[in-house]
Amino acid sequence: MTAPTDAMNPDETLASWRAEEAAVRARLRTAPGVASAAQVAGRSGLQLFQALLAGEIPPPPMAVTLDFTLLRIEPGFAVFQGRPRLTHCNPMGTVHGGWFATLLDSAMGCAVHSTLPAGKAYTTLELKLNLVRALTEAVPLVRAEGRLVHGGRQVATAEGRLVGPDRKLYAHASATCLVFDQAS
Amino acid sequence: MTAPTDAMNPDETLASWRAEEAAVRARLRTAPGVASAAQVAGRSGLQLFQALLAGEIPPPPMAVTLDFTLLRIEPGFAVFQGRPRLTHCNPMGTVHGGWFATLLDSAMGCAVHSTLPAGKAYTTLELKLNLVRALTEAVPLVRAEGRLVHGGRQVATAEGRLVGPDRKLYAHASATCLVFDQAS
Amino acid sequence: MTAPTDAMNPDETLASWRAEEAAVRARLRTAPGVASAAQVAGRSGLQLFQALLAGEIPPPPMAVTLDFTLLRIEPGFAVFQGRPRLTHCNPMGTVHGGWFATLLDSAMGCAVHSTLPAGKAYTTLELKLNLVRALTEAVPLVRAEGRLVHGGRQVATAEGRLVGPDRKLYAHASATCLVFDQAS
Amino acid sequence: MTAPTDAMNPDETLASWRAEEAAVRARLRTAPGVASAAQVAGRSGLQLFQALLAGEIPPPPMAVTLDFTLLRIEPGFAVFQGRPRLTHCNPMGTVHGGWFATLLDSAMGCAVHSTLPAGKAYTTLELKLNLVRALTEAVPLVRAEGRLVHGGRQVATAEGRLVGPDRKLYAHASATCLVFDQAS
Repeated sequence: MTAPTDAMNPDETLASWRAEEAAVRARLRTAPGVASAAQVAGRSGLQLFQALLAGEIPPPPMAVTLDFTLLRIEPGFAVFQGRPRLTHCNPMGTVHGGWFATLLDSAMGCAVHSTLPAGKAYTTLELKLNLVRALTEAVPLVRAEGRLVHGGRQVATAEGRLVGPDRKLYAHASATCLVFDQAS
Repeated sequence: MTAPTDAMNPDETLASWRAEEAAVRARLRTAPGVASAAQVAGRSGLQLFQALLAGEIPPPPMAVTLDFTLLRIEPGFAVFQGRPRLTHCNPMGTVHGGWFATLLDSAMGCAVHSTLPAGKAYTTLELKLNLVRALTEAVPLVRAEGRLVHGGRQVATAEGRLVGPDRKLYAHASATCLVFDQAS
Repeated sequence: MTAPTDAMNPDETLASWRAEEAAVRARLRTAPGVASAAQVAGRSGLQLFQALLAGEIPPPPMAVTLDFTLLRIEPGFAVFQGRPRLTHCNPMGTVHGGWFATLLDSAMGCAVHSTLPAGKAYTTLELKLNLVRALTEAVPLVRAEGRLVHGGRQVATAEGRLVGPDRKLYAHASATCLVFDQAS
Repeated sequence: MTAPTDAMNPDETLASWRAEEAAVRARLRTAPGVASAAQVAGRSGLQLFQALLAGEIPPPPMAVTLDFTLLRIEPGFAVFQGRPRLTHCNPMGTVHGGWFATLLDSAMGCAVHSTLPAGKAYTTLELKLNLVRALTEAVPLVRAEGRLVHGGRQVATAEGRLVGPDRKLYAHASATCLVFDQAS
């Protein structure tokens, strides 16, 4: 889905993904945290994510715990990147479905959030994941791409894909979000 | 769903949940790991989980990373317990949907796995989560209970519930698993 | 799930299901229709379904088209019954997944609706179905039972089961509904 | 998704959709039926649908019951078209979620089936639907487009969209199918 990589071979894509992540991580804060009410106030969803990417707002705790990061945000589109590690594995030695779910939930939720004006918030009502291929540490990086499908006044839906540098699909997902006025 | 707790008040339930976890953790290995082929061979699903609870097989890495544990296993029924922490939170300061998904995926997968004879394995094809209530660190413990719904020769389904000590429901879920012969 | 049938054998259950349906259909209007605003106004969800069962409100068109009926309604619980026919089949000669979906959507939606006071309406945001067994005309009747799982101010969820007279499970499902103020 | 319509206005699209359906229906058999074993034997999924479109195999009963038809089939892609009618409505006078589910289940199942060689069959294990907009008789025609997402040896997944002539989205969906050897 990310245009520049389509003509690249997997090694080139991997190198480009690593470079993009390094550039992003150079600006991110290192200590995780939760956005304060003051940081959220007056910012649209897109502005919040831009503040996160600019290092003004800390990365969320779960992203640090499970070693993944927001990479790119556009209205209705979000890309997260993560590194499958042994620490994310289930008893069979493959990456736990919960790790897939975490990245895809983030990507779809942010795709929705990125379309909301200041004063609006959202919560994910439901999430469905299709796990189509096992993932192991042998895959050096994966991307979760989330895309808004329907953006309504009260309800928004999104879809997501989890892919490797060779564009192999590991999982796809959909989600329903409730949009509401932020408590002020 | 767990009979002994139904007549208890939330504080008693919490104390009983803590005691049950302490008893389980006293026997668990501390270092996480992946089950070896030799450990899996000849063991039914139920026997594998019993070996894990007996400390013969290490707890899976993801359970250590996200601080939750298998607590109880019966044929077609599994209980996991976890503690919501700040490290599991999203930018809004509530527990990330991926943490819910991880516990419920574990509970439903183990409910299915617990019904499989030696030589059979499974993989989760899809997982759907309904997130019905926000979860924060203020909730000291939650349980994910997974239950087999349909156990077929090739396909099994399960449902799950994530509840607090006051039996408040935080999420419910369903999953589809593919059952196959283990490579030998 | 329906207590009185649990001790019966399948033939007795089938006879009891037929008798219950005959008693219900004796009171139902025969011509399908849509509830008018005047019929809806001032009635809770439960009262609406009771009016339908009393023949004051016509059965909905889709129920007539696909030959199924509401049988029983309680707060948070609904039972529909239908007869699998050749007219509901896909090219392979088994009942189309859409027929399962129709009965289960009705059962889950009504389970939610039955808990809403007058002046509140709902819409189904999403629906997930697990189809666990093929269904053919050889099964004389099936029941779709819907049950409220979470009833919130704005969002409600429900689960459903589609079973035969021998309590064989054909499908299970979950749904998310949005609850809102009826336009007046 | 259907390229030729993208540059058209809704009226032109509707006219083109009607023309395409009329051309398809001119070749379809009128009496519904189930494909016989002899008709299925030796035919790939794609060839089966081509035989249906050529009038050699009858349209499936459910398509006649709910007034929709296969329109176009390519490997991994299927288009169905249907007319929302009062007979498809729920008590509120909008099209029943089960009608959406029927068209989308058909579209996704056929997208999967169209990729299977002779001797292989499939069954839908699960189906998830997001209903994003109410549909009434005022919309003269809708299309359900199904697309293969993952085609594995044993498991395939697909996604679907239900759209109107103005490309308004009414629902989107995903499904998991089990692929197996046809009993011979």
